[in-house]
Amino acid sequence: MKRSKYLLPTQKNDPAGIEIASHRLMLKAGMIRQLASGIYDMLPIGLKSLRKVENIIREEMNKAGALEVSLPYVQPAELWQETGRWEGNGKELLRFQDRHQRDFCLGPTHEEVITELVRGTVRSYKELPITLYQIQLKFRDEIRPRFGLMRGREFIMKDAYSFSATEESCNDCYQAMKLAYQNIFSRCGLQFQSVEADSGNIGGSASEEFMVLAATGEDAVVTNESGDYAANIEKAQSEEFIAQLPKEKYTSLAKVHTPGAKTIEDVSRQLAIDSKETVKTLIYKADEDFVVVVVPGDRQVNELVLPKVFQAQKVRPATEQEVKKLTDVPFGSLGVIDIDKQVKGISQIVFDTLVHPGRYYCMGANEKDYHWVGAKAGTDFIMQNQAHLHLVAEGDKHVGSNESLTLVRGIEVGHIFKLGTKYSQDMKAMFLDEQGKQQPFIMGCYGIGVGRTLAAAIEQGHDEHGIVLPPQLAPFEVAVVPVKYKDPAQKKVADDLYESLQAQGFDVILDDRDVGMGMKCKDADLIGVAATLIVGPKSIEEGVIEAKLRWQTDKQKVTPNDVSNWLRNGFEQYHAEPSSA
Amino acid sequence: MKRSKYLLPTQKNDPAGIEIASHRLMLKAGMIRQLASGIYDMLPIGLKSLRKVENIIREEMNKAGALEVSLPYVQPAELWQETGRWEGNGKELLRFQDRHQRDFCLGPTHEEVITELVRGTVRSYKELPITLYQIQLKFRDEIRPRFGLMRGREFIMKDAYSFSATEESCNDCYQAMKLAYQNIFSRCGLQFQSVEADSGNIGGSASEEFMVLAATGEDAVVTNESGDYAANIEKAQSEEFIAQLPKEKYTSLAKVHTPGAKTIEDVSRQLAIDSKETVKTLIYKADEDFVVVVVPGDRQVNELVLPKVFQAQKVRPATEQEVKKLTDVPFGSLGVIDIDKQVKGISQIVFDTLVHPGRYYCMGANEKDYHWVGAKAGTDFIMQNQAHLHLVAEGDKHVGSNESLTLVRGIEVGHIFKLGTKYSQDMKAMFLDEQGKQQPFIMGCYGIGVGRTLAAAIEQGHDEHGIVLPPQLAPFEVAVVPVKYKDPAQKKVADDLYESLQAQGFDVILDDRDVGMGMKCKDADLIGVAATLIVGPKSIEEGVIEAKLRWQTDKQKVTPNDVSNWLRNGFEQYHAEPSSA
Repeated sequence: MKRSKYLLPTQKNDPAGIEIASHRLMLKAGMIRQLASGIYDMLPIGLKSLRKVENIIREEMNKAGALEVSLPYVQPAELWQETGRWEGNGKELLRFQDRHQRDFCLGPTHEEVITELVRGTVRSYKELPITLYQIQLKFRDEIRPRFGLMRGREFIMKDAYSFSATEESCNDCYQAMKLAYQNIFSRCGLQFQSVEADSGNIGGSASEEFMVLAATGEDAVVTNESGDYAANIEKAQSEEFIAQLPKEKYTSLAKVHTPGAKTIEDVSRQLAIDSKETVKTLIYKADEDFVVVVVPGDRQVNELVLPKVFQAQKVRPATEQEVKKLTDVPFGSLGVIDIDKQVKGISQIVFDTLVHPGRYYCMGANEKDYHWVGAKAGTDFIMQNQAHLHLVAEGDKHVGSNESLTLVRGIEVGHIFKLGTKYSQDMKAMFLDEQGKQQPFIMGCYGIGVGRTLAAAIEQGHDEHGIVLPPQLAPFEVAVVPVKYKDPAQKKVADDLYESLQAQGFDVILDDRDVGMGMKCKDADLIGVAATLIVGPKSIEEGVIEAKLRWQTDKQKVTPNDVSNWLRNGFEQYHAEPSSA
Repeated sequence: MKRSKYLLPTQKNDPAGIEIASHRLMLKAGMIRQLASGIYDMLPIGLKSLRKVENIIREEMNKAGALEVSLPYVQPAELWQETGRWEGNGKELLRFQDRHQRDFCLGPTHEEVITELVRGTVRSYKELPITLYQIQLKFRDEIRPRFGLMRGREFIMKDAYSFSATEESCNDCYQAMKLAYQNIFSRCGLQFQSVEADSGNIGGSASEEFMVLAATGEDAVVTNESGDYAANIEKAQSEEFIAQLPKEKYTSLAKVHTPGAKTIEDVSRQLAIDSKETVKTLIYKADEDFVVVVVPGDRQVNELVLPKVFQAQKVRPATEQEVKKLTDVPFGSLGVIDIDKQVKGISQIVFDTLVHPGRYYCMGANEKDYHWVGAKAGTDFIMQNQAHLHLVAEGDKHVGSNESLTLVRGIEVGHIFKLGTKYSQDMKAMFLDEQGKQQPFIMGCYGIGVGRTLAAAIEQGHDEHGIVLPPQLAPFEVAVVPVKYKDPAQKKVADDLYESLQAQGFDVILDDRDVGMGMKCKDADLIGVAATLIVGPKSIEEGVIEAKLRWQTDKQKVTPNDVSNWLRNGFEQYHAEPSSA
């Protein structure tokens, strides 16, 4: 490809108001262009790198025996009604009507469609297991799309679905996909970690996420010291030993005056106690019921676990208005002692596992400007139900060992799930087993954010000059940069190099523009071309090319005959010396 | 690929209610599955053949210097408002709102989006010409989707757009695309014709369609005898010489009683005249005005030309209700004599070029049950405005020669347009010319229906056993069919053949199922595998394979060593003996 005929609108200045490096660099390098919030044009080099990721994914999916299909983006409501997700989903599911007033949505995922396909085409256990995948557009109407391709509204996803006759076979499919994912992210040159995850909205019994470690990641990953434990913070479990807790200041029940104290911080400061000695009493709405959650004052509630704990479809904090209808107690003064007398219609109270029976706590006294201190858990208030409700924090202990847990940031690029029979039962998707009996398919589902994977690779691979992608994802492998293309001698060497490298299968761009050398090299560095070959007067004189790998600082002199070997060796060594960015 | 692990749900019986062969066979072969009206799953073999079409398109686009991009499916209303097409389009444009009540549509085409992209990234004539293309989903909310992938609602299209600084350069881009299209459809093994076409809704100055000739085609193509003229009937021009018209029966003006005669057929029968001796007087609504169109009684109005004739955005027949408000003349009794006195508010009258001045015509007398006969054109009624308003009919004469025109049916698989500056002016998409002056881009646009091309290939290529695709589009090139795969000797030969052909780059399926030979061969024929290789007891005994090309009836005996050469030769000869279907 010749640069002068190519659409490569690189920008000199950083685009304004961009928060993360990959988003900034993809805009600056002319990879993407925003058309609307969370909706992007893929420009030629952006699409090229994206296709390279897609091809790696496709090769590994095919190698794992998965079959490629392509399923509609526009999906009829009826299917989503079969699984209850038409009503169950929020506004992320973009719904609309066609000209005949029939309801449709833009597919944010394809469990319903693939289950419909398999229930209509697969009859017998003999045809199982089968894993189908596609690389297709999706739409999620995010309330705040951000970070470019990281969290767009329209985006490309690889989604795969396995259908098995037995649990064992489902495990095999799951493991095959897990292996394929490891291969894919390794081949993409990513530093990643697979972590235990929550199944969330999709449902199912087990799931793991593939996290690319990066400071700008939106997810928190919890790991232990020896590295054999990693989980999404939403899924992570921890123990906090009583032995490590501060000794309580108050050990007998008393009501104390705490004028103006509304938050845990206020109370802790006024009473000079550790926030670990307090508990928060919070009201949630679980479907149609109001419930109470009690956690230590220094902890966040992991709201993702609440639906399971309360056996509800949807759990959210009660609003101030809702609380006012239930009680006269001011919003910040709730406490669990006598709460059943003070607040009407609470159907359940669940205590976090970090509220230890026998320890003494401070809490709201259900009265403005008063708190209880020295309230003994299990004695002054009864603890019938306990569950792990808190988000893990740095320094917590790994369950079953004494190792401290650490939090790192990650970008979720892949997610694999065992779905069980949730979808096949809801949608009556059955096969005949060996005994001729109807059984629901046992399913798994497996997703990769394709654009997000590319963005994550840039998040991990960049420096002050621009993008540093591994050669297998770089928009071009080689840039041939003549100092002065108008000079006939340089033109000849550059043209020969360009043609011979192309003939050998390299993906090459020739910068044939009549602009300064600096601009040409800057552009090649900005867009992340893996290797730059400079052809100048010296090259002609000495018969060598000045060659540089994107992730190294030194130039080397290489004879034209040695160039292709030099490139191959250099590209192979990429994994030994990945970008330190 | 092994058949037992493959999703290939072939059907024994023809699906019900299907009108055309390609639709029936794609369903029966398990290529596609309908999810909703006009919306299809692409199953593995359907997707494989589709991707083969896509790859041919991509190769020819790249060869022609076009650059691949990918543009959003979900498009903001603002862009469509800039060109007036947000309001100008009918319900085919599927509109909806996102969660923030912003207006969007599903892209039925991408002129607006690509023009926005280029206006934001290309500054100077030095960067021109540039041709960008994508292979992307589109949505058109057809009122009656039909014929499977032929006229779906969600479908894959290759669309390309060229941007030039001069008319000459725009012509060059257009010609390059025309050549690429010829290569693409030739490589797809299609019998096709490029024809003059109307630019329709897209606008612009010139356009050609690529028509695959097939009896089930939805379009009519007009050609002359020597084959140097071909046009879509909507665009076709013809002459009808007075010399060839029947002599008129009535040659002086008289009002005659025609009780109960409401149609041209009724009148012609009652008066025993040729329908060519009559004229129809029709009222249309052109935007906000009512206009009159007069054509010979035996002719259809080509409604596609009316907007240009009346300089209106939209022209449609007036409804019976509307006519009643304008006149007391019964709906079927209108005639052009004194029409201005009988019908209120007619702004224009245009006569078809086939209404010849000096000839005598019969027409409604603006009075129930009466007609004029012998009304002399140009004398008894004035003909101020004439235009070519009629649809060409079989036997009409080619303009400029005396050759008869013939009508054949065609499937429009491609369409190329010169757009001029319509979009760039509406959207203020400008570049700086050599003089440093702002100029609007001169554009072309070029589309191919990818799924429709595959369906058209099947429409042209099928027989009573199923699909007969050219090898380059067949879902598999080779089926290896062991008579009994459980037999170890047959298994060995079949496996060896399968592996060696795959290693040589052939796209092979091995039918390893434990089912009868007949079923296996029928399946291979149904889905259109290009060559079947049968491995049976004889193969073992004689050391030969029974080999058959899909489009031939005879089997041949080939030694395993010769198989790959035999296949290559056979595939090359496909073009010499295409399916006669």
